[in-house]
Amino acid sequence: MTISNVTKLLQQRDSDAVSRLVDWLKIPSVSTKAEHAKDCRKAAEWAKQQLTLAGFSAELRETGTKEKPGHPIVWATTPGPPAGKGPHVLFYGHYDVQPAEPLELWESPPFEPVIRAADAGPKNKVPGERIVARGAVDDKGQVACFLEAARAWKDATGAVPLKITVLLEGEEESGSVNLDAFVHAHKAELKACDICVISDTGMLGRGQPAITYGVRGLAYTECILHGPNQDLHSGLWGGRVANPITELTKVLAQLWDANRKVTIPGFYDRVRELTATEKAEWKRLPTDAAEALKNIGLPPEADVGEAGFTSVEREWGRPTAEINGIYGGYMSKGAKTVIASHAGAKVSFRLVADQDPAEITEKFRVWLDARTPAGFRWEFINHSGGFPGTVSTESPYLVAANRALERASGTKPYLIKSGGSIPVVGLLKGELGLDTILMGFGLEDDRVHSPNEKFELECFRLGMQAHVLLIDELSRLGK
Amino acid sequence: MTISNVTKLLQQRDSDAVSRLVDWLKIPSVSTKAEHAKDCRKAAEWAKQQLTLAGFSAELRETGTKEKPGHPIVWATTPGPPAGKGPHVLFYGHYDVQPAEPLELWESPPFEPVIRAADAGPKNKVPGERIVARGAVDDKGQVACFLEAARAWKDATGAVPLKITVLLEGEEESGSVNLDAFVHAHKAELKACDICVISDTGMLGRGQPAITYGVRGLAYTECILHGPNQDLHSGLWGGRVANPITELTKVLAQLWDANRKVTIPGFYDRVRELTATEKAEWKRLPTDAAEALKNIGLPPEADVGEAGFTSVEREWGRPTAEINGIYGGYMSKGAKTVIASHAGAKVSFRLVADQDPAEITEKFRVWLDARTPAGFRWEFINHSGGFPGTVSTESPYLVAANRALERASGTKPYLIKSGGSIPVVGLLKGELGLDTILMGFGLEDDRVHSPNEKFELECFRLGMQAHVLLIDELSRLGK
Repeated sequence: MTISNVTKLLQQRDSDAVSRLVDWLKIPSVSTKAEHAKDCRKAAEWAKQQLTLAGFSAELRETGTKEKPGHPIVWATTPGPPAGKGPHVLFYGHYDVQPAEPLELWESPPFEPVIRAADAGPKNKVPGERIVARGAVDDKGQVACFLEAARAWKDATGAVPLKITVLLEGEEESGSVNLDAFVHAHKAELKACDICVISDTGMLGRGQPAITYGVRGLAYTECILHGPNQDLHSGLWGGRVANPITELTKVLAQLWDANRKVTIPGFYDRVRELTATEKAEWKRLPTDAAEALKNIGLPPEADVGEAGFTSVEREWGRPTAEINGIYGGYMSKGAKTVIASHAGAKVSFRLVADQDPAEITEKFRVWLDARTPAGFRWEFINHSGGFPGTVSTESPYLVAANRALERASGTKPYLIKSGGSIPVVGLLKGELGLDTILMGFGLEDDRVHSPNEKFELECFRLGMQAHVLLIDELSRLGK
Repeated sequence: MTISNVTKLLQQRDSDAVSRLVDWLKIPSVSTKAEHAKDCRKAAEWAKQQLTLAGFSAELRETGTKEKPGHPIVWATTPGPPAGKGPHVLFYGHYDVQPAEPLELWESPPFEPVIRAADAGPKNKVPGERIVARGAVDDKGQVACFLEAARAWKDATGAVPLKITVLLEGEEESGSVNLDAFVHAHKAELKACDICVISDTGMLGRGQPAITYGVRGLAYTECILHGPNQDLHSGLWGGRVANPITELTKVLAQLWDANRKVTIPGFYDRVRELTATEKAEWKRLPTDAAEALKNIGLPPEADVGEAGFTSVEREWGRPTAEINGIYGGYMSKGAKTVIASHAGAKVSFRLVADQDPAEITEKFRVWLDARTPAGFRWEFINHSGGFPGTVSTESPYLVAANRALERASGTKPYLIKSGGSIPVVGLLKGELGLDTILMGFGLEDDRVHSPNEKFELECFRLGMQAHVLLIDELSRLGK
């Protein structure tokens, strides 16, 4: 059988795969530091070479401008199977890494990867090894899972049996400043993709593989209520004139009803209701809302949110409105009897599919306008936004990924979402309408962005296997 | 007639009175600067001498501690008329002045008083002269009105025909840091007083004498709502847990009902309703709410406040709750997706007679407590407070002052209040239950606390006359 040849080859090459990852991790591709620009390009070239060896047509595509050049994007495509067979997959990852500082906290130099015995502990019953280096899990190690899988397919069968476009970014750790423009400029090519796969997230825990099939979007605004043209003495004006802080407070308090639902008309119009499948799936999760609250110093009764939903449903499946900051008047120590000329708040909305950040931002603006106190005016700032992403639990791609991960791990993967927002997921959804499956192999204790970042070799092996099998599963789907 | 002898003497001495005020103004009694401590004492000694010449038994009483001495208080008493005749009056004033900086903006040196022609202008039809110096109107010139009046009574009739205690403070411009303790320590002596008279405020305008018979009190608090023990990621926690800023907003918005009345139970219990007399009195005031709003950049429709009251009634006769400051979460430029661990607000109440600041503060604390979100807690800070003061419009002392000022000016004085709070008025009310009549002779353009501070000589003369006649009116009252 074809697939067993591929997996067999993968196993034979295990130590080669680790060596190759070590080589890549030695390149200090810190994207945020100008002095590492050459290293970034070197890391990109390295990936291009690996993709070429796996049968991809690979190249570096430049980003930024002549005055302000960015780090290149690694772009690669497989010839793909005979026309009409299987979907066209976009694989996104990044080859840049976070700065390694503070260096004194590293037990071994961040760019001299070492293989070490994994810590023993109650959560780590399987002994094993880990690779320690900056970028081990975020994201070189996880991208390497895909690179090794593709190469095993090539070497065992002659070709990767799936149409794949690879996009490896070099600025993920420095704000992806050129990604929007790049995706926009390459929209025609990217439009051909049917699904995006990213390995840059984590499992639910050791031995608990998971697929993240949705992230929330974001609409982040700031509203400043302007009243009098100067600060006023609260003795001489208190009671004579509306107080901007008071009025802002009164308006914002109306954003939620007694059930903690957002009151903006039409806010929930595009919200996909949770399916029975995912509700059931999330119920079996080994999460503990009370324990999570305890960790932030709150008692079980602080488990509040939109009525009718559990904590995990609210985080993953429901939109919210949050005041992220508020300011006005006298904010220092002591007392000052002032009526402020203005007061402001940072108000953001976490969105779920199929809400549109621009539409929600506009609805909020209209809602505010309708509540302008007499003679006052709003200043409205639209800070940023991103589309939510959700792959239907009925999606054949998600089913395929689920099956691949189950075959690779021998255990039923958890289907999870994230309450946070991943900019690239929102970008692909907003610009291309493309959904993303996040199949990640990190663990919570991997020290992402911290000293002694590591990737368990058992996770690396699971990742390589899963990507081999994901190519298998997807290649067997109709378009 | 006795009184005509006194007023005649006052007129004869007009230039002496101006010379004496000039002498006092030459002493740079800037209380906030340590290097002027000797000047402060010199200014106090000067006042003591004038009071002695007017037949008072006068002395300096020390304030503060050995380690941190304060400026002395000038304390003086008249022997008073035969027992049982007339009330015992407390005259409060201050001999210290604000710093003169910025010096370069003074047209003549701040402590070298000059007599200058008053500015011409549409509001200044009566030509005249003014005395320009730091402290000219705040408060040496106004205290001098009283000193000259007392001395005229002494010299024309042999004695001031009224029991008067004089308390001249030397720290009014530096926070009256020792006044509370002083009043408390001399409570037994001060308890004998029936009414306090202060000349440290203004007239309604040129040719529009006024008596301020009430000021609002103040209860200034800060409430900080504590939720989680750390800032949270709004993606991972938004919707899962209550947001301290949101909850603070929702609680504070309940402080007012749709009629902009404060909703704290019992808040209005002790509020003296406005009398028909004062409502009628205030209607005839040449004030213009729309014009005042225009000056702060607001249209006429911004004239909002507690339903059922005019702008001036709300400012002078009704209590309010104001948010003077609010803060929480991310308050700088741009966006940060955070759920803050806590959020706070400075909330103050302007009070009217007979509200008690401690009682209102406690009621607010209880009101907040009843609205604590599950698992959260309030931190409550009581910053400061002061009693409101209001003299009944039926009070014989107010009637006497009104009559005195009408006789002195030839025009019916306006009976006004102030929405602001005057600490000494609140202190005397709170500590002694003593009401205060504010009979002031300043004008809005006197440049109080600013360069080129001045006092119109016509106002100085009116003040001296008014104090002569106030002594006359009060001495004729029964106890």
